Amino acid sequence: MARLFHVPLSPFCRKVRLSLAEKKIEVELVEERYWEADPDFLRRNPAAKVPVLRLDGIMMSESAAICEYIEETRPDPSLMPKGAEQRLEVRRLVGWFDDKFHNEVTSKLLYERVNKKVMGQGFPDSRNVKDGAKAIKYHLDYMTWLLDHRRWLAGDVMTLADFAAAAHLSALDYISDVDWNRSEVVKDWYAKIKSRPAFRSILADQVPGFPPPKHYNDLDF
Amino acid sequence: MARLFHVPLSPFCRKVRLSLAEKKIEVELVEERYWEADPDFLRRNPAAKVPVLRLDGIMMSESAAICEYIEETRPDPSLMPKGAEQRLEVRRLVGWFDDKFHNEVTSKLLYERVNKKVMGQGFPDSRNVKDGAKAIKYHLDYMTWLLDHRRWLAGDVMTLADFAAAAHLSALDYISDVDWNRSEVVKDWYAKIKSRPAFRSILADQVPGFPPPKHYNDLDF
Repeated sequence: MARLFHVPLSPFCRKVRLSLAEKKIEVELVEERYWEADPDFLRRNPAAKVPVLRLDGIMMSESAAICEYIEETRPDPSLMPKGAEQRLEVRRLVGWFDDKFHNEVTSKLLYERVNKKVMGQGFPDSRNVKDGAKAIKYHLDYMTWLLDHRRWLAGDVMTLADFAAAAHLSALDYISDVDWNRSEVVKDWYAKIKSRPAFRSILADQVPGFPPPKHYNDLDF
Repeated sequence: MARLFHVPLSPFCRKVRLSLAEKKIEVELVEERYWEADPDFLRRNPAAKVPVLRLDGIMMSESAAICEYIEETRPDPSLMPKGAEQRLEVRRLVGWFDDKFHNEVTSKLLYERVNKKVMGQGFPDSRNVKDGAKAIKYHLDYMTWLLDHRRWLAGDVMTLADFAAAAHLSALDYISDVDWNRSEVVKDWYAKIKSRPAFRSILADQVPGFPPPKHYNDLDF
């Protein structure tokens, strides 16, 4: 069986978990305290990051590379459209969330509030938290603009771009950092994603010391 | 003709320039002071980052997405192997350089020494410079380990992984931050890449206020 070394709230791990689940690839989840740089883990991935996926006898790292591999070897159901221009848009948005959104929002809210505590690195930096809370509004507005024009983030079909975005937002929702009242279309989009069977494992996550809010796994939030 | 909005020393822009040149796609280079957030530029890319490429009538952003698009629409000469496992390795290494190497080295050396001055953000933080100078040694050693086992970084053929790595190293070499004496195999690898016609435009770059060292465009460095 596939095995994923992960951290429950990591958006990069969640993106991989969503891809695997959507394609019905069973996976054993192994929590990895990657920041402790255990030699066994470093052998699996010298970059010392999660996710690391063992699949088809290969030890894989880098979530973007992993998701492309899964898509190439298990194209059905597809998370990538066929046309080059549409694929460009999917990858642009995956980059948007995993780079820009990650730097401006996820790292400033989730990492300050949760990772620092879990890793024993002290208290949240309130300036970062403030910046992240401000930046997420801009990102929700950008998503609103996209979803006003499209059924899904990258076009008319659900793609990896939706999973990348949902991976970040679901992790932030776990700590109540998403204001779902800001945008009706974003909320509707998230409700659609959230109700997919692929999302179940993510909604069942529990991080010791950080109980999720009631609405987190409520499909009718 | 294709048009690339870029910054000369940006490794992400250089990776795209190398891909375009290797595939003999002519491109007009337009320098973009993206940090000034000109409204015209923001319309081209709301992420306010370079590179932005206009090709096939499409305005493209995110260097990883752009390079995949170029590869899909101009597969010859190829910068991606055919097999899924080999493609995984190429993308893993592109991620290694564009994420890990970028965070640990490029941002600490190049951005401190050059970008800060160009953007009027003051002097280099000596702690960052020290950390970057330390980290690049570890990365050169990792490249040595790879190249002891392989002709090119991701395997037996030259790929996008080599261009991603060369894009970062060439930008750092412009400010003399690469110790080529540390590893014979890395130096040989760079000499091979450097002598490709695709590299010419990169070796001709000039940044006002930062003249390149003599060895920078010397093929026999």
